[in-house]
Amino acid sequence: MARKSEITTLIDQFAGLPGLGPRSAQRLVLHLIRHRNRKLTPLLEALSGFSERVQDCPRCGNATTFETCRICTDHERKDSALCVVETVADLWAIERANTYRGLYFVLGGVLSVRDGTGPTEIRIPQLVSRVAEERPEEVILALNATVDSQTTVHFIANQLAGMDVKVTTLGRGVPVGGELDYLDGGTITAAMIGRRDY
Amino acid sequence: MARKSEITTLIDQFAGLPGLGPRSAQRLVLHLIRHRNRKLTPLLEALSGFSERVQDCPRCGNATTFETCRICTDHERKDSALCVVETVADLWAIERANTYRGLYFVLGGVLSVRDGTGPTEIRIPQLVSRVAEERPEEVILALNATVDSQTTVHFIANQLAGMDVKVTTLGRGVPVGGELDYLDGGTITAAMIGRRDY
Repeated sequence: MARKSEITTLIDQFAGLPGLGPRSAQRLVLHLIRHRNRKLTPLLEALSGFSERVQDCPRCGNATTFETCRICTDHERKDSALCVVETVADLWAIERANTYRGLYFVLGGVLSVRDGTGPTEIRIPQLVSRVAEERPEEVILALNATVDSQTTVHFIANQLAGMDVKVTTLGRGVPVGGELDYLDGGTITAAMIGRRDY
Repeated sequence: MARKSEITTLIDQFAGLPGLGPRSAQRLVLHLIRHRNRKLTPLLEALSGFSERVQDCPRCGNATTFETCRICTDHERKDSALCVVETVADLWAIERANTYRGLYFVLGGVLSVRDGTGPTEIRIPQLVSRVAEERPEEVILALNATVDSQTTVHFIANQLAGMDVKVTTLGRGVPVGGELDYLDGGTITAAMIGRRDY
């Protein structure tokens, strides 16, 4: 075989990443071989800079290569709102929507009896003390619409009760571009309950 | 924004690779962030080992991290057959089929009037002198079925004429699993011309 050693190792490494399989990893490595000067060196540099410096922001849990992440240090963002999300991916999804200008708190998971994840594993005490210290006007619990996530929403809402902070969750209903025919009953029920004047 | 600096740079680098776009690159980087110990370090090591050592095999043009590639140094492979391919990707495709046990010669392209690619750019003189030196029994011209590739096949066949070597090209016809209804007229014509006794 042609591609033992470093070449096979690299293909195997890429093939283990999400969205890539053995064939696409091989295509990617062939591309890197063909364009080694223009693509390989910059990729290697980006990866090693990233690898050395990436860490969790100590304040919000976002991934960052700075001491504190860009959102936490951005003075244009309102500290009156704190958005609680499960993962960094969710934080990025909300940032992509370009609609929210407050701060974040990344739990890193949700409560789960099955997986044995308790409140301390997902930094709920830290969240509670951050709310007590910083006194935001509103805490938005932007968690997924699954059972474990909603259990976590209830738990956090209970912890924050009596702290003089408005606790909200995301609106439910028909997604933009959604067709009723393809939606489940739960979503349609939520959309009916959450109906608004036109 | 959350992901400036090294994180954005890395996403941009991945997004420029084939098979990956901005969204899948972001998903990949998030995965590397989440599994930094288990995935990031091995990937970085594989990539830097590869980057330091990858080169063209001086004999056949295959990509290798050794002085001469594994195929050229494999004594179990028959030196009586020499398979000429356009790219390293084509060589790997033939290796995947696990049917050919001879040696290779990678041209690195095909003759093209449009792109101004002449015989020296695709190492045809090297191919001719290798055939003259090593005297294989058969040279298989395993090039693509496009116009430029077939022009290159004719050119090489002419160069090798009178060298006492059998020159062959790949068979043409219906691909395995192919349905006639979906095949072009040229392929069906080739399959009719190349029909065999059952």
